[in-house]
Amino acid sequence: MRLTPLAQGLPASVPFVGPEAQERARGAAFAARLGANESVFGPSPQAVAAMADAARDAWMYGDPEAHDLRAALATHHGIPVANVVPGEGIDGLLGYLVRLLVGPGDAVVTSAGAYPTFNYHVAGYGGTLHTVPFKGDHEDPEALLARAAKVDAKLIYLSNPDNPMGSWHGADVIRDMIARVPEGCVLCLDEAYADLAPPGTVPPLDVSDPRVIRMRTFSKAHGLAGLRVGYALGHADLIQAFDKVRNHFGLGRVAQAGALAALADADWLAEVQARVAQSRDAIAAIAAQHGLTPLPSATNFVTVECGRDGDFARRVLAALIDAGIFVRMPGVAPLDRCIRIGCGTAADMDALREALPRALDRARS
Amino acid sequence: MRLTPLAQGLPASVPFVGPEAQERARGAAFAARLGANESVFGPSPQAVAAMADAARDAWMYGDPEAHDLRAALATHHGIPVANVVPGEGIDGLLGYLVRLLVGPGDAVVTSAGAYPTFNYHVAGYGGTLHTVPFKGDHEDPEALLARAAKVDAKLIYLSNPDNPMGSWHGADVIRDMIARVPEGCVLCLDEAYADLAPPGTVPPLDVSDPRVIRMRTFSKAHGLAGLRVGYALGHADLIQAFDKVRNHFGLGRVAQAGALAALADADWLAEVQARVAQSRDAIAAIAAQHGLTPLPSATNFVTVECGRDGDFARRVLAALIDAGIFVRMPGVAPLDRCIRIGCGTAADMDALREALPRALDRARS
Repeated sequence: MRLTPLAQGLPASVPFVGPEAQERARGAAFAARLGANESVFGPSPQAVAAMADAARDAWMYGDPEAHDLRAALATHHGIPVANVVPGEGIDGLLGYLVRLLVGPGDAVVTSAGAYPTFNYHVAGYGGTLHTVPFKGDHEDPEALLARAAKVDAKLIYLSNPDNPMGSWHGADVIRDMIARVPEGCVLCLDEAYADLAPPGTVPPLDVSDPRVIRMRTFSKAHGLAGLRVGYALGHADLIQAFDKVRNHFGLGRVAQAGALAALADADWLAEVQARVAQSRDAIAAIAAQHGLTPLPSATNFVTVECGRDGDFARRVLAALIDAGIFVRMPGVAPLDRCIRIGCGTAADMDALREALPRALDRARS
Repeated sequence: MRLTPLAQGLPASVPFVGPEAQERARGAAFAARLGANESVFGPSPQAVAAMADAARDAWMYGDPEAHDLRAALATHHGIPVANVVPGEGIDGLLGYLVRLLVGPGDAVVTSAGAYPTFNYHVAGYGGTLHTVPFKGDHEDPEALLARAAKVDAKLIYLSNPDNPMGSWHGADVIRDMIARVPEGCVLCLDEAYADLAPPGTVPPLDVSDPRVIRMRTFSKAHGLAGLRVGYALGHADLIQAFDKVRNHFGLGRVAQAGALAALADADWLAEVQARVAQSRDAIAAIAAQHGLTPLPSATNFVTVECGRDGDFARRVLAALIDAGIFVRMPGVAPLDRCIRIGCGTAADMDALREALPRALDRARS
């Protein structure tokens, strides 16, 4: 076999090791699954029912145009259908976006410590990734813009609310950033956690603006990470370009049905929002009780400062994992002084409450 | 926005128009859905139950290693786990394979009229597609090999059994072809219909051979087209290379659960095989009754010669579609003298039996 030069240079490694692999390695299931920013509160019961119904019809390919889902999303956001494209999760859509815009040597700008899967796609298509540091645990729009202008970037990545810190910028900051994206550059605004952010975080949609494409997902507040459905909102020209490269039958019938039902169930979303808020408070209280500093969060996780350096936080993380609590942490200093704890059920919080002091003892010794 | 030069040159068109789009255009649902080589007999009831169960757990990402499914597939085929990789349908896996091997200007060989989605991927990564004609309604291994040697192809595509003609080569022919694949070239052997072929069609697996990668799917005999699960079998080096580019969380929890249950239900597969054989006979009888010539089939469809040229067959197809029978046909002469009719239920066959003579009358007038 003769791999392309580009493929030959890529590592056969993965951005994430799944909790299942960790469970196999430790020979036991986790007591609490709080590491992947999943929604432990589950999907809408209506979405569960819709998926079960669609399972019987799973012999049929999904509509390659995802017409009904696309129309519902357009209505939901008050925009034309031409400005929305659903796909196989934000991960899949990021891959298509990078493929459309980034060729070998093209410059891309992101924050050091931001979403690894975006970086994976940039590397995968031969792009050159430039990073700027977080500033006070926030992604730094000024630095991103300045670097993008300097390196003539084709793409900037920013998540708001942010993963892995849980921080956020107000809509005005983001709106100002969009207005200043350099000519010929596109801002990929990852709004995976938009449904969990306080009012005033998400700027109004303006799909006439070619400088920004916004990513949304059913994986977070809608509790459908295991179904793989996200969507992009943007200028019609860029949205239409996805048809050049997307896997046309990639969004199956079960996935479309589940997402459609989830979108319609506003009550469940409100319920999840309430439970997330409650669990954020619980995590913050548990952390504070043991002398740690919970950072403010606009997401379904709370990033917690462990009070020392990255090595210490890694020891805390390892001890929590050994105790059956699946959590993750930022990969880059100085963010790696923190661990990231996902919102959970009351039972999850009990498990965390019991495990954290012991993990801290072990990490300190 | 600045698309890459490659993306700029790609059409924003799709290889297939889905039946749902046709239904929207005609303002009515099809009475029989026989055009996409789906399995109208549905998935295994055990797979349906497994998907419904997994729907409740859909808040969790699927295991990015698909460990259990991969292990089950390896056991099923009696090969090591390192030689199998599941993915988002054969469509998704073809995309990854092309991306790994084919860069701008690289030569790829297929048959004129073979699978359009493969060609879509080759174009999408800038490859140069070379085609050889079918020979007697069969793909032509000799011509494919000769052209591959001549153009220094990195990849050859062959489906066995074949879509869209339903024909097949015996295992000996394929084994001989594999042995003669030119140095540095890989044969992509699409065996989507392997479960529906007569004994002696599928050569034994030899995953030590780097010259061939074999594609299988849950979309056909297993009746799970709407779930998007396929897998590739091949040399460990090539299989491992998929980790360089694949969407690691692309195979969701529901999809993995459904495929795992389907694989375990050998009784349902046998049942589908029997119903397919029965329906092939029914289609052949209906065609023959009206003076058409059904071609022998090793798939879940029967390709039927309409007895004149492509224009005539296209008129027959249009009339069937107007009558509520969703069918498709080959896109290239001389294969386009035929239409392709999928196996169906007794009700589907009744609908076909009623519609076909009228469609022929209309096409002739």
